[in-house]
Amino acid sequence: MTYCVGLMLDAGIVLLSDTRTNAGLDNIATYRKMFLFETPGERAIGIMTAGSLSITQTTMALLNDAIEEPENDKSILRAPTMLQVAEIVGNTLSDVTAEVSAKMERMSQSASASMIVAGQRKGGPMRMFLIYPEGNFIEATSDTPFLQIGEHKYGKPILDRVIDPSTTLEDAEKAVLLSMDSTLRSNLSVGMPLDFAIIEADSFRIGRRRRIEADDEGFARMSHAWSDALRSAFQQIDPS
Amino acid sequence: MTYCVGLMLDAGIVLLSDTRTNAGLDNIATYRKMFLFETPGERAIGIMTAGSLSITQTTMALLNDAIEEPENDKSILRAPTMLQVAEIVGNTLSDVTAEVSAKMERMSQSASASMIVAGQRKGGPMRMFLIYPEGNFIEATSDTPFLQIGEHKYGKPILDRVIDPSTTLEDAEKAVLLSMDSTLRSNLSVGMPLDFAIIEADSFRIGRRRRIEADDEGFARMSHAWSDALRSAFQQIDPS
Repeated sequence: MTYCVGLMLDAGIVLLSDTRTNAGLDNIATYRKMFLFETPGERAIGIMTAGSLSITQTTMALLNDAIEEPENDKSILRAPTMLQVAEIVGNTLSDVTAEVSAKMERMSQSASASMIVAGQRKGGPMRMFLIYPEGNFIEATSDTPFLQIGEHKYGKPILDRVIDPSTTLEDAEKAVLLSMDSTLRSNLSVGMPLDFAIIEADSFRIGRRRRIEADDEGFARMSHAWSDALRSAFQQIDPS
Repeated sequence: MTYCVGLMLDAGIVLLSDTRTNAGLDNIATYRKMFLFETPGERAIGIMTAGSLSITQTTMALLNDAIEEPENDKSILRAPTMLQVAEIVGNTLSDVTAEVSAKMERMSQSASASMIVAGQRKGGPMRMFLIYPEGNFIEATSDTPFLQIGEHKYGKPILDRVIDPSTTLEDAEKAVLLSMDSTLRSNLSVGMPLDFAIIEADSFRIGRRRRIEADDEGFARMSHAWSDALRSAFQQIDPS
C-alpha cells in the first residue's frame, strides 16, 4: 500500500509520499515513490506513484529514458504544457499497464498503478493531475485543491477541514504531515521514511525538499502534539 | 454503504448506526440498521447490520421468528450465553448468505453482510462480536474495545485516539458521534438519521436510546464545535 498526497495552493505545490512497498505482509521494502524533475527557472515537476511496483518502476524508467534522448518528443522536460506532461505520463502508464496486465492475466492476476503529476512551466499556471491506471486523468481545482492516491481515507478528514487554496505553505506542510500521521497509525502497509517537497508558485524549481526518517524528532514531536491537541479539543466539546 | 460502530467499555456498551441504504447512487432509502432486544433485568442485546439489505432483513426476520416460537432453541433471548447468541446470529447469517448467494451467482453477482452483536445477560459479562459474512466472528477486548462495520476508515482515527475501556459513557457518546460526523462528511452513502443506544454494565436493559434526525440541533452544534476545535488545534501545532 501507499499514501501520497499533493496540494495545489495559491502559494505553490506541496507533495508528500511514504516509501513502503510490500508483496504480502511478510515482504516489506522501502522504495522511493516521489520523483522530482526540474530545469531550474524553466519548469519543475513532481510525480508520485501508487500501485504495482513493476508498473511504476517501468513507467518511471521510460519517462527518464525519454528525457535523456534529445530527439524523443515524449520528454516531460520538453513538453510545451503541463497538460501534455500529464498526457505523456498517462500514455506511458497506460502502455506499461497493458503490457504487464497481458502477462498477469495468464496467471489470473492483475496489476495496476496510479500517479499524481504536478508542476509548473514558465508561461503557464501550476497544475496537478491524478492519472488513473487506464491513463486518463482528473485535475485539482480551487474547489478540490488536493489529490490523494493509495490509502486515502484515514488522512482525508484533516485535509477536508483545513486546506483551501489560500492555505500557507507552512500550514500546508503541517496538514500533509498530520494527514500522513493518521494514515501511518491506521495502516501498517504505509510506512516511514517520508519524502516531502514544495514547488513554490512561479519559482520553476524544486524548493524545499526533505526526507523524514523514522527517527525524525520534529515529526515525532508534531505527531504527539497533535494527539494531545485532539484529545484536549475532544474534552472541550459539549455533548450534543 | 453503512457505518456502524460499537464500543465495549467498563461502563457499558455504546452503539451507533446510520440508516442510509442505496442500490446505486440514484436509489437511496432509509432503513433501520440497529435492532435492540431485551428481557428487562435479565438480558439486553443490540445488533447492527451492514451489507446487502436482502440478507440483513431476512436474517433479522428469522432471528425475530425464533424469539416468537416458544420451542425454538435458536432464540437469542433464550440462549444461555452471549457466545451462543453470537453463534445463533452467525449461523443464521451464514445460512441466509449461502441461500441468497446461490441465486446471485446465477447472475454472476454476489451479496454479503456483516453484523455487530453486543450485549449482556444476567450472570455473564458484557460481550461484543463482529460477525463476518461467512458466519464466523471476532470479539472486542480491552486491547481493542471497539468494532466497526461498513465504511470504517474515516471515523477510526478519532476512536484510536480517545477510546479506551475506562472512557466514560458521556465521552463515548461524543466519540462515536464525532466518528460518525467524519464519515458522513466523506462518504455520501452514509447518511442521517442516526440510531444511538447504550446498554449500561450490569443493567440488563436497553438504557438511553435516541434517534438523531438530520435537523438535530445538538448534533449540528457538536459537529461545528468539533470542526472549530480541530482547526484551532491545528493552528496551535508547531511545524516539525
